[in-house]
Amino acid sequence: MKEERSYTLEQINDIVGGILNKIDSAPIIKRIAPPKLADENTLALALSEEEIENLYSSNAKAALVPLGVSFEGMTTIEVERPRLAMMKLIHLFYMPPDAPVGVHPSAVVHPDAKLGQNVSIGANVTISRGVEIGDNTKILPNVYIGRNTKIGQNCFFHAGVNIGDDIQIGNNVIIQHGASIGADGFSFVTETPNSIENAKQEGSIQGDYNQQRIFKIPSIGSVVIEDDVEIGANATVDRGTIENTVIKKGTKIDNLVMVSHNCKVGENCMIVSQVGIAGSCQIGDRVVLAGQAGLADHISIGSDSIVMAQSGVTKNFAPRSIIVGSPAVPRKEFIRQLKYTKEVSELLKQFKQYKDKLDQYFGEIEEKTEV
Amino acid sequence: MKEERSYTLEQINDIVGGILNKIDSAPIIKRIAPPKLADENTLALALSEEEIENLYSSNAKAALVPLGVSFEGMTTIEVERPRLAMMKLIHLFYMPPDAPVGVHPSAVVHPDAKLGQNVSIGANVTISRGVEIGDNTKILPNVYIGRNTKIGQNCFFHAGVNIGDDIQIGNNVIIQHGASIGADGFSFVTETPNSIENAKQEGSIQGDYNQQRIFKIPSIGSVVIEDDVEIGANATVDRGTIENTVIKKGTKIDNLVMVSHNCKVGENCMIVSQVGIAGSCQIGDRVVLAGQAGLADHISIGSDSIVMAQSGVTKNFAPRSIIVGSPAVPRKEFIRQLKYTKEVSELLKQFKQYKDKLDQYFGEIEEKTEV
Amino acid sequence: MKEERSYTLEQINDIVGGILNKIDSAPIIKRIAPPKLADENTLALALSEEEIENLYSSNAKAALVPLGVSFEGMTTIEVERPRLAMMKLIHLFYMPPDAPVGVHPSAVVHPDAKLGQNVSIGANVTISRGVEIGDNTKILPNVYIGRNTKIGQNCFFHAGVNIGDDIQIGNNVIIQHGASIGADGFSFVTETPNSIENAKQEGSIQGDYNQQRIFKIPSIGSVVIEDDVEIGANATVDRGTIENTVIKKGTKIDNLVMVSHNCKVGENCMIVSQVGIAGSCQIGDRVVLAGQAGLADHISIGSDSIVMAQSGVTKNFAPRSIIVGSPAVPRKEFIRQLKYTKEVSELLKQFKQYKDKLDQYFGEIEEKTEV
Repeated sequence: MKEERSYTLEQINDIVGGILNKIDSAPIIKRIAPPKLADENTLALALSEEEIENLYSSNAKAALVPLGVSFEGMTTIEVERPRLAMMKLIHLFYMPPDAPVGVHPSAVVHPDAKLGQNVSIGANVTISRGVEIGDNTKILPNVYIGRNTKIGQNCFFHAGVNIGDDIQIGNNVIIQHGASIGADGFSFVTETPNSIENAKQEGSIQGDYNQQRIFKIPSIGSVVIEDDVEIGANATVDRGTIENTVIKKGTKIDNLVMVSHNCKVGENCMIVSQVGIAGSCQIGDRVVLAGQAGLADHISIGSDSIVMAQSGVTKNFAPRSIIVGSPAVPRKEFIRQLKYTKEVSELLKQFKQYKDKLDQYFGEIEEKTEV
Repeated sequence: MKEERSYTLEQINDIVGGILNKIDSAPIIKRIAPPKLADENTLALALSEEEIENLYSSNAKAALVPLGVSFEGMTTIEVERPRLAMMKLIHLFYMPPDAPVGVHPSAVVHPDAKLGQNVSIGANVTISRGVEIGDNTKILPNVYIGRNTKIGQNCFFHAGVNIGDDIQIGNNVIIQHGASIGADGFSFVTETPNSIENAKQEGSIQGDYNQQRIFKIPSIGSVVIEDDVEIGANATVDRGTIENTVIKKGTKIDNLVMVSHNCKVGENCMIVSQVGIAGSCQIGDRVVLAGQAGLADHISIGSDSIVMAQSGVTKNFAPRSIIVGSPAVPRKEFIRQLKYTKEVSELLKQFKQYKDKLDQYFGEIEEKTEV
Repeated sequence: MKEERSYTLEQINDIVGGILNKIDSAPIIKRIAPPKLADENTLALALSEEEIENLYSSNAKAALVPLGVSFEGMTTIEVERPRLAMMKLIHLFYMPPDAPVGVHPSAVVHPDAKLGQNVSIGANVTISRGVEIGDNTKILPNVYIGRNTKIGQNCFFHAGVNIGDDIQIGNNVIIQHGASIGADGFSFVTETPNSIENAKQEGSIQGDYNQQRIFKIPSIGSVVIEDDVEIGANATVDRGTIENTVIKKGTKIDNLVMVSHNCKVGENCMIVSQVGIAGSCQIGDRVVLAGQAGLADHISIGSDSIVMAQSGVTKNFAPRSIIVGSPAVPRKEFIRQLKYTKEVSELLKQFKQYKDKLDQYFGEIEEKTEV
């Protein structure tokens, strides 16, 4: 039942802007795949050394290869940046989820809500009072959108997304399954200083907190998500306490990431799965936060920085920092620490040798003294 | 369309219990904001040194400041505990999500279920057989509540929450988007000892586990959530195997936290985002687990302890412990380790100096010996 | 209202295959519980030293005990592998969630979809075009199933699960609350090398990335989940870029785990809560990934390996490896590092002693030289 699409190698070469080395009987291309999974109508993607090697045993009659790679007996398209070419080819075969224009009869759309042209509202979606949705935006089943939230054009929200009140979402925003935008910030206060406040001052936990009541600080700030942002499955972006939490344009957030209240995340950042960003952090533009990294609250990270996987960032870093470890340090310092460990190891060996000599020598001295 | 609220500075001062220093033409307060975002009808919140500095360039005519701070040319309210005052002020402007009393026609409520007074059941909610819901509880769209689950009064469940069978939830419980309460515990058994059981004994992985079948241990325990608990977006609290998993009153759990089967979490704990608590842990009262910390199974942590971010706790800790590192140690030991590293570094430098002298000296000795 | 079940001790002993030591007036068993929570009709589960001790103060008249344990004045059943016996006993008392056969009137099932015998489709479920669901599979409320997804027999999907297009799911698969199967992979490309690509080569971040646009690489691969797999609450398994992401038969995945695009996870693995597996990893059979462990992309881990909690795996490991630390190393090396730290500590103490002697000695030498 899947729609079949086919392309000539000339058409494909036009799309990827490569060099076509065509031998006789070049096939019609109906799919793309790694060499091992290719058939006669597959364009084999041989982007790495290993995959190029796999071409020898492949059924493919045509392959996409890096610039400068030639392969006898096969039609090839050489490209300078294979991953970019792959992206363009995937678009040829990609079929987005069904999202028919119109409002599904089971959806609950508040009469006050304003829907643009060609909007798709799926089954069992709830659209609250005062919501506005731009043209061509598609919302899959079981999504909830809270009061007065504004959504731009050409957005695509997958099933089960939950969006709170007063959220502002730009154009071309993609949100994956079950992500939460605009849950309350994790923000509380006690009438008197709590154990953490005291421990910071005293270095140990003193006092009696038995009777201390915890009050929730509600969030009257919201979330602003700018154009071209993507947010991963079951990720959470909390609303701000008073100001908004902001995700600037082009930033990509992976599954299960936590962005806490008041954070400002810059443009074109890449935030990999399971990263946790505590409250009120300032992330510059084009910052990469690798998987499972954590940032303490009120941390500032300069533009073009890279925080490596599982790092725990507890202080601010300037632009163009490479940051690693828990607690995190600049990469140079981290490498110095590793070198230092080796140096200690080497010196210990030497010390053992001297120790033997010294034992002998001081032994002699002592013997002399005794004499 | 947003409802506008306004207050005199006297009204606000009454609420926060501060010292009002009023100059002429004190404004009506229609909103609160940091100094930089303030207009003439804003009460600027200048709670930190930095924000107090920002008052100089602010359009605000009135500010909330810490006790003892005076600011010329502006009406101020001085308060002893600014964060507490902020919480009270936010409540003046907070608007909870719409949750009209009654059952939305698209909701599916089992005829056996008992709903209290003023309950709100949103669109596409499913309420199973035998459920009981207390007065004034509000349940937003797309929530699922399993068989025989009992929910107290004044609870607020945000959209997309999933609650299993036989769960007991107290009063004033808040659950954020997409949280899971009462999924099955991650509990399995094999007929013969598995690789982990053997590795613990032998220190390496021996034996052939090819034919070993894994059996699921179902969960016949449930989850008990006491009064005043809050559970964050997409967090998960699993049901107990035989006994219940318990979250005691007043405890706050942040987004994406995992509380495994059989855990007992005490009162007024703060469990920050992405913390993972393995099966059968015992957490005392007022324990703080900072972001991304992890606890191995069957761990006990005494009351009033603080586990620092990203720590990995593999043994029990007494009350009032401050715990850090992976594997986690008391904070004092952690600091000793850091000091020790410095000491090693210093001694290595010294050793290098002695080494030069010794090389010279032993060299001489050897020469003498040779003579 | 809960259904009551009861068993004789003989019936129970037949099920667990133990040794029944019956004294007079052995009770009818209506429930199982730890000794402290037991009443006269409870079979007390005394599986550990501590629980056996608790039998002395228990109201139980019968207990399940490990082989070789005798307990005067109580009927006991001795078993060789208590946890296995417990699993069998729990099945006696377990009641699965209600899932009546048939399609709930509020569910939205595409007319093209094919449902097997005895299928249960709950309230507000959406089943898309081309979906096939095998016999006896049960789907609880608010689940979304995308286009052309095939689901086997005897599956059980809990509430709020989101499943994308073209997914293949085998028989006996259990998916817990809110899990996401088949969200898009986190895969992007820029026209020219980005900061990470350059940093890998240069060791620092050079160049200007201001104008660099990020392109999404869509996922035309899917997800294959084989028989007997379980996937935890709010876990996410992303679709492959071109090939499929694969979870092989019998593997169990806990809550909040992330399995990224293109990963191949072997048979009968145990992947504990909050583990993150980056793109294109190859996990062998029967591999254990303990809580919060992380794997970098393209990592291969051999069968029967154990990755310990919070480890950060950045290189490949052979079968039967025990892996620990961040960056992760074989357990033997980790222990060597711990020993080495102790050794350093010891040698430093010794060095201090020699230092005193050397100071004295070189001091003397210098005095002599001066003379």
